[in-house]
Amino acid sequence: MKTRMTPIALEKVELRDSFLAPRIAANRKATIPGLYESLRRNGRLDSFRLKNGGVHIFWDSDGAKWVEAAAYSLAVHPDPELEKRVDAYVDLMCRAQARDGYLNSYYQTMEPDRRWTDLMRNHELYCAGHLIEAAVALQEHCGKPRMLEALCRYADHIGSTFGTGKGKKRGYCGHPEIELALMRLYRATSRGEYLDLASYFIDERGRKPHYYDTEAAGAGRKPEADPQRYDYYQAHRPLRDQTTAEGHAVRACYLFAGMADVAAETGDAGLRKACRRLWDNIEGKRLYVTGGIGSGVHQERFTVDYDLPDERAYSETCASIALIFFAQRMLHADLDRRYADVMEQALYNCVAASVSLDGTRFFYANRLAVYPKLLQRGISGEFPPFRDAWFQCACCPPNIARLFASLGGYVASASKDALALHLYAAGDLKADLGGKEVKLSVDTKYPWDGRVRIRVSLKDPAAFSLCLRLPAWCARPQLSLGGKRLAISRMEKAGYAHVARTWRDGDAVELDLPMEVQRLSAHPSVRQASGMVALRRGPIVYCLEECDNGADLADISLPRSSKLAAHWEKSLLGGCVTLTGKALRRDRKGWDGLLYRPSPSRRKTASLKAVPYCLWDNRKEGEMRVWIREE
Amino acid sequence: MKTRMTPIALEKVELRDSFLAPRIAANRKATIPGLYESLRRNGRLDSFRLKNGGVHIFWDSDGAKWVEAAAYSLAVHPDPELEKRVDAYVDLMCRAQARDGYLNSYYQTMEPDRRWTDLMRNHELYCAGHLIEAAVALQEHCGKPRMLEALCRYADHIGSTFGTGKGKKRGYCGHPEIELALMRLYRATSRGEYLDLASYFIDERGRKPHYYDTEAAGAGRKPEADPQRYDYYQAHRPLRDQTTAEGHAVRACYLFAGMADVAAETGDAGLRKACRRLWDNIEGKRLYVTGGIGSGVHQERFTVDYDLPDERAYSETCASIALIFFAQRMLHADLDRRYADVMEQALYNCVAASVSLDGTRFFYANRLAVYPKLLQRGISGEFPPFRDAWFQCACCPPNIARLFASLGGYVASASKDALALHLYAAGDLKADLGGKEVKLSVDTKYPWDGRVRIRVSLKDPAAFSLCLRLPAWCARPQLSLGGKRLAISRMEKAGYAHVARTWRDGDAVELDLPMEVQRLSAHPSVRQASGMVALRRGPIVYCLEECDNGADLADISLPRSSKLAAHWEKSLLGGCVTLTGKALRRDRKGWDGLLYRPSPSRRKTASLKAVPYCLWDNRKEGEMRVWIREE
Repeated sequence: MKTRMTPIALEKVELRDSFLAPRIAANRKATIPGLYESLRRNGRLDSFRLKNGGVHIFWDSDGAKWVEAAAYSLAVHPDPELEKRVDAYVDLMCRAQARDGYLNSYYQTMEPDRRWTDLMRNHELYCAGHLIEAAVALQEHCGKPRMLEALCRYADHIGSTFGTGKGKKRGYCGHPEIELALMRLYRATSRGEYLDLASYFIDERGRKPHYYDTEAAGAGRKPEADPQRYDYYQAHRPLRDQTTAEGHAVRACYLFAGMADVAAETGDAGLRKACRRLWDNIEGKRLYVTGGIGSGVHQERFTVDYDLPDERAYSETCASIALIFFAQRMLHADLDRRYADVMEQALYNCVAASVSLDGTRFFYANRLAVYPKLLQRGISGEFPPFRDAWFQCACCPPNIARLFASLGGYVASASKDALALHLYAAGDLKADLGGKEVKLSVDTKYPWDGRVRIRVSLKDPAAFSLCLRLPAWCARPQLSLGGKRLAISRMEKAGYAHVARTWRDGDAVELDLPMEVQRLSAHPSVRQASGMVALRRGPIVYCLEECDNGADLADISLPRSSKLAAHWEKSLLGGCVTLTGKALRRDRKGWDGLLYRPSPSRRKTASLKAVPYCLWDNRKEGEMRVWIREE
Repeated sequence: MKTRMTPIALEKVELRDSFLAPRIAANRKATIPGLYESLRRNGRLDSFRLKNGGVHIFWDSDGAKWVEAAAYSLAVHPDPELEKRVDAYVDLMCRAQARDGYLNSYYQTMEPDRRWTDLMRNHELYCAGHLIEAAVALQEHCGKPRMLEALCRYADHIGSTFGTGKGKKRGYCGHPEIELALMRLYRATSRGEYLDLASYFIDERGRKPHYYDTEAAGAGRKPEADPQRYDYYQAHRPLRDQTTAEGHAVRACYLFAGMADVAAETGDAGLRKACRRLWDNIEGKRLYVTGGIGSGVHQERFTVDYDLPDERAYSETCASIALIFFAQRMLHADLDRRYADVMEQALYNCVAASVSLDGTRFFYANRLAVYPKLLQRGISGEFPPFRDAWFQCACCPPNIARLFASLGGYVASASKDALALHLYAAGDLKADLGGKEVKLSVDTKYPWDGRVRIRVSLKDPAAFSLCLRLPAWCARPQLSLGGKRLAISRMEKAGYAHVARTWRDGDAVELDLPMEVQRLSAHPSVRQASGMVALRRGPIVYCLEECDNGADLADISLPRSSKLAAHWEKSLLGGCVTLTGKALRRDRKGWDGLLYRPSPSRRKTASLKAVPYCLWDNRKEGEMRVWIREE
């Protein structure tokens, strides 16, 4: 049975936990204002003046993502100064809009006569999509309609430009984003033409004759000799025929999120099936244990099945955020824990790691092993080893800002007769189940402890299912109601315990998700993790840092028999559980001046301490690694 | 005690072994003619017409290296057709020479007014160096003086342009090569000004004010903000102050070879010490087990100590060849097996692997692990997985050609009272020891078997030391003379057995170098080889190929207790010794659709077969790896 649900709006969720809530606060206090300064300094907030040179093709998206983040933050935390900044941006933007609705600061400033001539490379519809998302957020969360009105006019202009109708361009954007944005616009306005336009963009992609061939020929460029090369843009073949997640990972998951939205709204089974196939490929063959995706540094892309390098992981922050978007769409069409599990995996590991605890510094690439000496001084030509305050290509920081500002919206969902909890965090939420208001109070130390106590408050008794995710990482979840154990296996559907009954005010459910320290192995085809284990406890993936374990982390090995103990460390990194145990290191005796030798080194006992991956690089700079050799 | 020696010329060495001799033959029959066709087709042999556009800054070096290879080949194998081709090239080149001696097809064709304006980037002196090497080879090995005369005029022109004298430029080339070439010219002509000029280039490098700053300023370019960045050119500081091998690996070792030459000729102890420090750094911290160097794909460079990735190894063919040049120079200033050992290691592994057995296809990068799926279709942006017939940047193939054509010259050296054998291969050689002619006949199946029988032929009894390298890979070498065991420890100096006596015609020495299968570990700081072993037998490093072991080679592990057996396989890959043993693989049961799981896989016994690394990619295409996980 499939239960179609709607996310509970972020305004209805108040988090008070020690993991997410401090991140949300740092995002509000440091990230959003800090990004404002960076964007301003770099000209991105002024680009709609249409006067300054040097505007880049995706500056509009940077500004728009910041506005979107601000809108979510304002929804739960009024801030007149921030509101003024948002209004000023919107005002400038509205005044820049062309009479026909067109709105793009790059083209309007730099190449006014070249609109829609390089869809493959120039991010025009991508920028439109981000502006639309910001506009929807301002309307839905702040009750500010002005940007939305402007963006509807722009969307109408886009609709009159693209499509299969006579005289229209049969194009689509090289960087997907417009698809999911149009679906948000459709839901915000109930105007069917936006659904139709999103469907058109999904269906047209990869068809022959190939639009990018035509476009290149028109511009005097050579079309790709090998159409497979369009996989970078997910345009190597029609989406319904794609079976593996290919190309630029952010583009891919934005697109798949849009596809999933279209499939959910239209009930298109073929499209839904294609979404599931692509999901299966990512989850089963192309996902880091941290929830990162897109392992290839070259072209920021998915590479091939089971190719998951650790030191050379690209695992872009935006890609993991895009995966969360995709997961959320899949989950709401089909309440299945696999989607929420991956959402949690990406959020609590890769994405949480992508920003410093104080919200001021960011990772673009989220490696699973870092060897600083190699990454310093540009020797390897790659990102430096530690977080940075800003990037020339600034997509990730504002993406982090908008995700953390809207995090409340990922916690739970409701239908008229069901209320589902996806993420466990201490706090309250209110849901409207077909007119009945239900409040849940969640008491837990998750993700550091697996006991979750949920108290139901409502005026009158009401019948509904409380659906609780049973994470796949937990082998033996237990559930009790008013102190009485429930037979969890009888109420489980697709990894959610559906507790269906007439609920009364004060009813309390206890979910116990025992958190053992796990040694994860990767599939035998993941060559980069052969003979190694990753440590996980609950949803949290661990890593070794040099400041706890000394340098040369790769030399540490963990005997299979070594017991790992978990400790709550209240004053470490904002409070977290660390793991310790006995490990081995090689004796360095006899190695002077030698690089290779026939005799093996003696092993020496060493102590190992692992900290949550999401908290690394908040102390002393040094090496880091997730995968540990097992002996 | 140091014994200064001179290499025995390649004409005096006749190899008949089953390893080197067939390579030399393939080089003569396939590589040299094949390269001629490629160079001709790509315009490189016509560039001295000074008429065609599109000449590249280092085309002269490609042609010159081919001429040099041809010269060596003609020295031992007359070939009128080849000789005609060489003469035609030389004729064209001589006619292109400017009146003042200048000779560079790029500048003369493309930027005639910009000579010597971009020494850092434009390879002008580098091309001069390769032309000089070719000229010396033609004179010394073929008795053709015409090119040498032209190049002396060019060298004189260079000498009048560069130096510390008034009005001279204080420059030096961004791509070293001129230094070692001038040393060859000096030895060929005995004209001291070439030694002085080489010394100047060595001494000036990296001095302040920095020439590349001055040059950049003159051209309106921004000088490097961080002088450390000049390490790419080995110009970050004066050479005598450099302690680690930095930057582009080919440039580095060409330069170090030139330095070693200058130090040997001038007796400059400081310079010699600097050479030894740089050698120590390479040998002790930056050398692949295959004899490759320069692990960084980015900038084809040395990276940091102990950074030796396998899949991402760059290990350029030219860099390993340059290392052989450096090793040979060090060896002839100081008879120490460490230099000859590395020479052997690079030659029998990395360099031998860089060309197919038939001499028609080449590696530019010599990886230690190859996963073809990742490298196909340009997904990773790197070289494809298998050898290619040609490269846009064509430095490696003609470098291979000139090394193999001159290989006889690396086998042995002589002084007036000593004759040293560095490489063991079946064949004959003739040496002149201060007027006494000595012939050695070597009978061995080396590198497949360690027994080496050396028979001395001479007219009259003569007193000299026969110095035999005792490779460091051999723990217990044995030596006998006329059937009687010699006490090797008493005659060993720096890894050579010095057998000093009065030799008579027919005397025979037997050197036995037992070849055991060794499992090499890397230094504990080499993170990419943690927990792994490389198999070596004699000088030969082994690898696994997919065609012998199935796919997913990284999943194979070798129990520490597993015995490895060596077999002579007469009809495999031209005849070679392979290794077999029992290994383990993980059971794939229970992995369907899973990427990570807490329970380890069961191990299944599998058989393992390793073939010489230098012979890989001569059969069916597939995965390859050198380092094997040990359990």
